[in-house]
Amino acid sequence: MICVLCGGTGAAKFLQGLQRIVPPAEITAVVNTGDDVMWWGLHVSPDVDSITYALAGILSRERGWGVEGDTFECHARMRELGAPAWFSLGDRDLATHLQRTQWLKGGRSLTNVTAEMARRLGVQSRILPMSDDPVETRVVTESGELSFQEYFVRERHQPVPWEVRYIGAEKAHPARGVLDAIHQAQLVIVAPSNPITSIGPILAVPGIRGALRATPATIVAVSPIVGEAAVSGPAGELMRAHGLEVSIRGVAQVYADFLDMVVVEESDRKLAPRVEDLGIRVHSCRTMMQSDEDKAELARQVLVASKMRTPTPTSQSQASRGPRPRAASPRRP
Amino acid sequence: MICVLCGGTGAAKFLQGLQRIVPPAEITAVVNTGDDVMWWGLHVSPDVDSITYALAGILSRERGWGVEGDTFECHARMRELGAPAWFSLGDRDLATHLQRTQWLKGGRSLTNVTAEMARRLGVQSRILPMSDDPVETRVVTESGELSFQEYFVRERHQPVPWEVRYIGAEKAHPARGVLDAIHQAQLVIVAPSNPITSIGPILAVPGIRGALRATPATIVAVSPIVGEAAVSGPAGELMRAHGLEVSIRGVAQVYADFLDMVVVEESDRKLAPRVEDLGIRVHSCRTMMQSDEDKAELARQVLVASKMRTPTPTSQSQASRGPRPRAASPRRP
Repeated sequence: MICVLCGGTGAAKFLQGLQRIVPPAEITAVVNTGDDVMWWGLHVSPDVDSITYALAGILSRERGWGVEGDTFECHARMRELGAPAWFSLGDRDLATHLQRTQWLKGGRSLTNVTAEMARRLGVQSRILPMSDDPVETRVVTESGELSFQEYFVRERHQPVPWEVRYIGAEKAHPARGVLDAIHQAQLVIVAPSNPITSIGPILAVPGIRGALRATPATIVAVSPIVGEAAVSGPAGELMRAHGLEVSIRGVAQVYADFLDMVVVEESDRKLAPRVEDLGIRVHSCRTMMQSDEDKAELARQVLVASKMRTPTPTSQSQASRGPRPRAASPRRP
Repeated sequence: MICVLCGGTGAAKFLQGLQRIVPPAEITAVVNTGDDVMWWGLHVSPDVDSITYALAGILSRERGWGVEGDTFECHARMRELGAPAWFSLGDRDLATHLQRTQWLKGGRSLTNVTAEMARRLGVQSRILPMSDDPVETRVVTESGELSFQEYFVRERHQPVPWEVRYIGAEKAHPARGVLDAIHQAQLVIVAPSNPITSIGPILAVPGIRGALRATPATIVAVSPIVGEAAVSGPAGELMRAHGLEVSIRGVAQVYADFLDMVVVEESDRKLAPRVEDLGIRVHSCRTMMQSDEDKAELARQVLVASKMRTPTPTSQSQASRGPRPRAASPRRP
């Protein structure tokens, strides 16, 4: 079993590759819900949707979110009717939110609703929201405090961020199945997602970080940072706001108390020693995911690298000094 | 000022004609809300929507409901997600229901929401729901009691109806503006709508029937019955269930306590004496509304006939024995 901690875009691409090389039923995705938003009265769960659509094979390639080939007739009319329109929902996508909202109103949990949605769309992997409890990622910026979607979509992440808060996280419980998925996995993969606003909310749910420290599974992160910038999105600015170096070392630092290995772009191989200093091994390969082949190859690299517990430097990998005593001496309390 | 009591399809067509021959701002439509339904968690007001779309010039000609040229992407996906799908909402139409539901949740009245929606769509006439209070038209049939939409759409009005109930009507209040519109109108027109399930709920709201009896306005109904059947829909079966003759006489009987005149199809001119017996004048003309010209001509006929208080039999009209002392001696208590 493989457990993948997921945000949206990058994680969706990575899972598309992973399900090409391992049986989908062996994959459990634990997905950020800190970006969830009530929009037009509907419960929208952007990362859960991206992951679900990706695994169902209907994620828009062009946009990276929403349904492939979707239309926006309702959205255009909403704008005419004076509704806020900076957040777009396609017509087919709308059905997901309408049905989710109805199911939630009927008393079902987000976990149950997410599973049902995935089943209806033919997804064989398991998709778990990080929590059934509300956690709201808020970004304190130079222009004031914003919800994640306000910061990311409405303001196009232009305001300089100062701090990210996970409102409600301290009272949230991991969704049913999350801790077991982490404990029982052979491999936990932290997808190439924003460490602060995609993976950060997951780690902020009490119990999840502890489970990651305690699991016997190998834990591998795929770096969303290449060189000194994020592959996409505002991960760089947000890491900087949290006092982290924008590099593979910064990524490794966020996860240092539970991570075994980080998979980085080949061009970052030169930085490996600065990550290995943290007791985290480094595997370098091509991490850019443009084609379906890229996605599958990255997933294959992660699987292969995760089995290299003993340092075996090759032309493709920079191995560390072996497994570190992770659970015994966590770097973060 | 002209006040029109409206259901959906027939009333929508009639209003399209009326607004071609009188300034739209002089028209107030009082619309049935007994068919309103919560669908996919959204407040759908089918008759209000048909009237609004008709007056905005965007009503689907082909379907007679919903938005012209609308797509059904969301609907198709809802079906896939296991949602009930026997009631169709187009993608553009959905925006109306999403926005209405949001506005209602925000504490606005249906009257206010209806006005705002009409304004946003460029409608110059006034559209009033009959009431801001919930009134639910239910049809008791041989197959059990059904909501109106279940009876009309889901069951395609196949079960034999026994009785129609207007649940909540006795506690409902006319929407703000309705009684004034009736009192201040020069002419009140009962649109060619189903007397039982479209006009019936309006008349069931306490105060409205009394206002119709008391208004100095001339009141003219356009018969939705031609010969022994409804032009469309189940008006015939429903009238029969309520012990009414399915004819222009039956229509006149429903409104006998406030009606001055009924406008009927030419072929029904022969039945005029049986209506005039009720003290209601009869004007016959072409009432079928196929083309835009038909709609405008019918509206013109209604306006012309409404002014014929003194009997002036012509080749186009069968006039009654003059105005009857309506308010003084109502036929129905």
